[in-house]
Amino acid sequence: MPRVSQDHLDARRRQILDGSRSCFARFGYEGATVRRLEEATGLSRGAIFHHFKDKESLFLALAEDDAARMADVVAEQGLVQVMRNLLEDPTGAEARALGADWLGTRLEVSRRLRTDHEFRERWAQRSEALTAATRARLQWQRQSGNLRDDVDVDVLTAYLELVLEGLVSHLAMGLPARHLGSVLDVVEESVRRHRGR
Amino acid sequence: MPRVSQDHLDARRRQILDGSRSCFARFGYEGATVRRLEEATGLSRGAIFHHFKDKESLFLALAEDDAARMADVVAEQGLVQVMRNLLEDPTGAEARALGADWLGTRLEVSRRLRTDHEFRERWAQRSEALTAATRARLQWQRQSGNLRDDVDVDVLTAYLELVLEGLVSHLAMGLPARHLGSVLDVVEESVRRHRGR
Repeated sequence: MPRVSQDHLDARRRQILDGSRSCFARFGYEGATVRRLEEATGLSRGAIFHHFKDKESLFLALAEDDAARMADVVAEQGLVQVMRNLLEDPTGAEARALGADWLGTRLEVSRRLRTDHEFRERWAQRSEALTAATRARLQWQRQSGNLRDDVDVDVLTAYLELVLEGLVSHLAMGLPARHLGSVLDVVEESVRRHRGR
Repeated sequence: MPRVSQDHLDARRRQILDGSRSCFARFGYEGATVRRLEEATGLSRGAIFHHFKDKESLFLALAEDDAARMADVVAEQGLVQVMRNLLEDPTGAEARALGADWLGTRLEVSRRLRTDHEFRERWAQRSEALTAATRARLQWQRQSGNLRDDVDVDVLTAYLELVLEGLVSHLAMGLPARHLGSVLDVVEESVRRHRGR
């Protein structure tokens, strides 16, 4: 039997992630049955679950993927810019890369997150990259003298993440984006250093 | 046949709302079957759907109920205080009165809100009371000179509501409340009037 190359494995993994992402986005977590995952990925259940232990692991891998991509943008441009990208064009390529196409699916698992301790732990670990990138960016901003210095960086990190959670929820529900650009201006300004503060 | 008094109708309506609220909180929107709604309210499906056209109407009546109660607290104490109450004791009586016990259920319908235009319209109407109360409170604060006057009241209203959406999502997912008290301090301060602004 020929040895399967790492490149091939990575490509296969990517194929499964991309297909199942659109499957989750279209049918929701519960609605994304194994049969539909097979159709969406073009692979057999055997192949899919060779790479991911179960549907939950697949779902968490997508969440991790999103967090990692968001973290990259955060490192370059900050979390407020991530939010502006989401807002600008929630169905655009950039927003899709940040996981906007299945924001609703993420909300759908909220009951599960609340009631299933182990699932919540795994979810929290997946989001850790985003928190770390946000904190690092804010720390750098503080050293550059751009960040207010009367509030702890951890608090400002939690503040920006809370606004992101609100935006995700808002967009996932398809609610009107009225005023939200200006809202992000308020958010951005409220973490900045001001004269006299 | 004796005429049914308005008081009796109101009491029955209340009985249905209270029972179905805990049913939705426990089983989720999909899981709250007609049989379970009967058990939770102690009433027959005939009696329940005499008062509410269907499950959707019942669900939206609960959302309206929550928005109205929140609006009362907002008028007295402001939206930041509503958030502090939710945060302080998410399972306490005050938070329950604000609908915290079924926050997760509200998230569960996000897919439906996004894809079903009519449902979203009805939902938006139900939340209108909260927006109106928040705006009125901010306008009053501005007249009292406590509110920053360089940002439109509608933008500040949308800002506070976005933070509330984030908090609802955060608590519904059972994520840790670490730093959130201090985060609300940042939020409150960012809508206040400052010397030199």
